[in-house]
Amino acid sequence: EAQESSRPTKVQELHVYEINERDRGSPAFLKLSQKQVNSLGDLVPFTNKIYTGDLQKRLGITSGLCVLIQHVPDKKGDRYEAIYSFYFGDYGHISVQGPYLTYQDTYLAVTGGSGIFEGAYGQVKLQQLVFPFKIFYTFYLKGIRDLPQELLGKPVEPSPNVEASPAAKATESHAVIPNFTD
Amino acid sequence: EAQESSRPTKVQELHVYEINERDRGSPAFLKLSQKQVNSLGDLVPFTNKIYTGDLQKRLGITSGLCVLIQHVPDKKGDRYEAIYSFYFGDYGHISVQGPYLTYQDTYLAVTGGSGIFEGAYGQVKLQQLVFPFKIFYTFYLKGIRDLPQELLGKPVEPSPNVEASPAAKATESHAVIPNFTD
Amino acid sequence: EAQESSRPTKVQELHVYEINERDRGSPAFLKLSQKQVNSLGDLVPFTNKIYTGDLQKRLGITSGLCVLIQHVPDKKGDRYEAIYSFYFGDYGHISVQGPYLTYQDTYLAVTGGSGIFEGAYGQVKLQQLVFPFKIFYTFYLKGIRDLPQELLGKPVEPSPNVEASPAAKATESHAVIPNFTD
Repeated sequence: EAQESSRPTKVQELHVYEINERDRGSPAFLKLSQKQVNSLGDLVPFTNKIYTGDLQKRLGITSGLCVLIQHVPDKKGDRYEAIYSFYFGDYGHISVQGPYLTYQDTYLAVTGGSGIFEGAYGQVKLQQLVFPFKIFYTFYLKGIRDLPQELLGKPVEPSPNVEASPAAKATESHAVIPNFTD
Repeated sequence: EAQESSRPTKVQELHVYEINERDRGSPAFLKLSQKQVNSLGDLVPFTNKIYTGDLQKRLGITSGLCVLIQHVPDKKGDRYEAIYSFYFGDYGHISVQGPYLTYQDTYLAVTGGSGIFEGAYGQVKLQQLVFPFKIFYTFYLKGIRDLPQELLGKPVEPSPNVEASPAAKATESHAVIPNFTD
Repeated sequence: EAQESSRPTKVQELHVYEINERDRGSPAFLKLSQKQVNSLGDLVPFTNKIYTGDLQKRLGITSGLCVLIQHVPDKKGDRYEAIYSFYFGDYGHISVQGPYLTYQDTYLAVTGGSGIFEGAYGQVKLQQLVFPFKIFYTFYLKGIRDLPQELLGKPVEPSPNVEASPAAKATESHAVIPNFTD
């Protein structure tokens, strides 16, 4: 019940691709502002697929909410406040909170996690490749034990053309993590 | 202003029952997807009562938001992304973020807290007893000082029949924590 | 990639004023409960300006979501669950989660951050000065390096009459932090 344990402060990098393959009915763009241009008041629940950085394995899904904060005409884009989680099957999940700008890379806060990510803290870099369908993430995680090798393959260089491997897309048994989230 | 303090990494278990006694107008199921079946786009703000694990004392309330992510026909249930807090009167609050599945136990991340829960981290197990009215939580908390005995009574074995003690339901003075949240 | 670093547990106070100057179309009060009185189901996305505690510099903005939990007739006010972030230009951001009561000071959890606030934890006191237009915050931050002097000016005593300096309001170059968030 009351076990002592030290908390690692080592930084571990974890690369994840988030890809919207347009088969999950996501995002749900709720135009609650009732304005023609994207505006404060619009809400965007979403859920996409996630893959390892080497694009060889399906990990699971993202799920959460983007709150539209403002349209930024100069950048032809929008600022969102994003609150969501990344699900990694039996490994657990990572929760994040922070900025999502459709026109610029951002860093979000890692607010915690479960499973092998229990006690995680740090930040995550969000790099948009194709709006809003492909995003590359680099997590800088602290507070957790060494990540499993299966998650640490050499990442494919981010570009708009990246695709998950056919086996990963097809969720073949050698191309998914244990009990991948779907 | 700049006091040093060590941060405890000991795990402390805290048991809490969340019970919807149908007297708070909760949940508010916002059918924003405009689809007949539960779908991405639906949002569910909620607030329920919480009791100590031994069901002898009213602690306060939960409050927050569930974002419907997907209907899961195989399981006859739904996946939600949940973002909410547990309020413990003068003791403060615990915030959490993560998965809520109507058909399976889950673990959410503890993202922080206030009062005696300031600096809390770790995870919490969510066990559903009666959907959506009775839930049993086991917090695995780190980063905080020893919890008060008042919160640590021996938990009643989780079952669909559990009820708070009549005194706790009636918020009699000996059956509530100081300034319990209502 | 795997650098060790110790995590500071020193408490650092940071004072911030949040002021709604009514020029950002905020808040967006979404009356989704469809009830006349404020009720569970109503959602309030918002974004306001933030200034240093000495009111001499524009820092950036807040952005996020308030979930209406209950109307409290005795207090002529409302309880919200608040999930939002504070943006500090090039310095990064702080994310928070917790209670916002329109009639009483509260403490929210610091759930994390980015940039100089990467790994931040602790709590923040919210003091309402003019509902819903002026709020004074005192962050009690742990887990981060020493804050820059620019953020640590002596705070102006909180009162309903506080205003940002004219230079800060006008975002003159000497009265903003680097790449202040707008």
